[in-house]
Amino acid sequence: MPEYKVFYFNVKALGEPLRFLLSYGNLPFEDVRISRNDWPALKPSMPMNQLPCLEVNGKKVNQSLACCRFIAKDIKLAGNDDWENLQIDTVADTVNDFRLKIAVVSYEPDDEVKEKKLVTLNNEVIPFYLEKLDDIARENGGYLSLGRLTWADFYFAGIIDYLNYLAKQDLTANHENLRKVVDNVIGQSAVQDWINNRPHTDI
Amino acid sequence: MPEYKVFYFNVKALGEPLRFLLSYGNLPFEDVRISRNDWPALKPSMPMNQLPCLEVNGKKVNQSLACCRFIAKDIKLAGNDDWENLQIDTVADTVNDFRLKIAVVSYEPDDEVKEKKLVTLNNEVIPFYLEKLDDIARENGGYLSLGRLTWADFYFAGIIDYLNYLAKQDLTANHENLRKVVDNVIGQSAVQDWINNRPHTDI
Repeated sequence: MPEYKVFYFNVKALGEPLRFLLSYGNLPFEDVRISRNDWPALKPSMPMNQLPCLEVNGKKVNQSLACCRFIAKDIKLAGNDDWENLQIDTVADTVNDFRLKIAVVSYEPDDEVKEKKLVTLNNEVIPFYLEKLDDIARENGGYLSLGRLTWADFYFAGIIDYLNYLAKQDLTANHENLRKVVDNVIGQSAVQDWINNRPHTDI
Repeated sequence: MPEYKVFYFNVKALGEPLRFLLSYGNLPFEDVRISRNDWPALKPSMPMNQLPCLEVNGKKVNQSLACCRFIAKDIKLAGNDDWENLQIDTVADTVNDFRLKIAVVSYEPDDEVKEKKLVTLNNEVIPFYLEKLDDIARENGGYLSLGRLTWADFYFAGIIDYLNYLAKQDLTANHENLRKVVDNVIGQSAVQDWINNRPHTDI
């Protein structure tokens, strides 16, 4: 069995999909949480100076979506063929686009610019993505792809608390199919065990 | 053989990696170029209302990176195992991050905000990514991953004209290893044939 380490800050955010997947697959991992104070010294040792970083048998890799896809292959959360994998990849990238569109406004440092961009984000972008993603989840019976549990669901469920924090709203409150996606992931007993035992953090 | 169509605007940009890959693989495809006038009427028929869109045997899929990965599996430009695919995916996502960081500034509508963000982009972000990516290309002998031609090279070479346009500079001019990545793709005879016969567009 490969030796896994997840390097990230002491938050859920982009590290949590990796932690959910490893927990679900009963793949033991070291959950390395780096403090903001220690980060500047450690930063150059991480690929692209980024976190999260997954270490597999001593080799470090960045890019959380790519790492999720890799872990998923090992634990039957990937597709059964190239076409199925395309369906999963497409919706995972769509969730990631949604995250980026929220993040770019949320992290805008100029208050005046941010206020202006928040109008478009809240009135157009967020409703558009929620409606489309909820439709996809309804068509797939409470999953984001293939009508069954895949790593795309883990990506969404893993980052939802972080997305809600960035967007300052409960994004699944009025989208029951997306809520089902989250519930289908966090309802898995190994994920539930992880949630019950993980360090408590707000985001 | 699947029937492929690439739907995009009459530009290279995000459609060109798909066109390069299909050409390299000798996979015939319909190169559908949608005019800006026709786009509003066609938009609702595209997944997530987005272009580029790849159609495979009548089924439409968005997300160009996911589509590149799918085509690559068919034409020996993917990895030979999950670990190799992780290496390719990671660098392809890094190139995509680089694109997004340039695009978000380039498309900023407010001139004053844009001027401010251009300083960080040009002094910090672009030099950082170019140095890191050039290091990766040097370590891989003129490729972005695995020391051989993969779809990550096609993604980079396909979007480079567009990136140069957005960044208002020749990004590979002082980065010979990244230049080699581009040359290793456009030097493939089937890609060269495509380039010689494609519609001429600036970006």
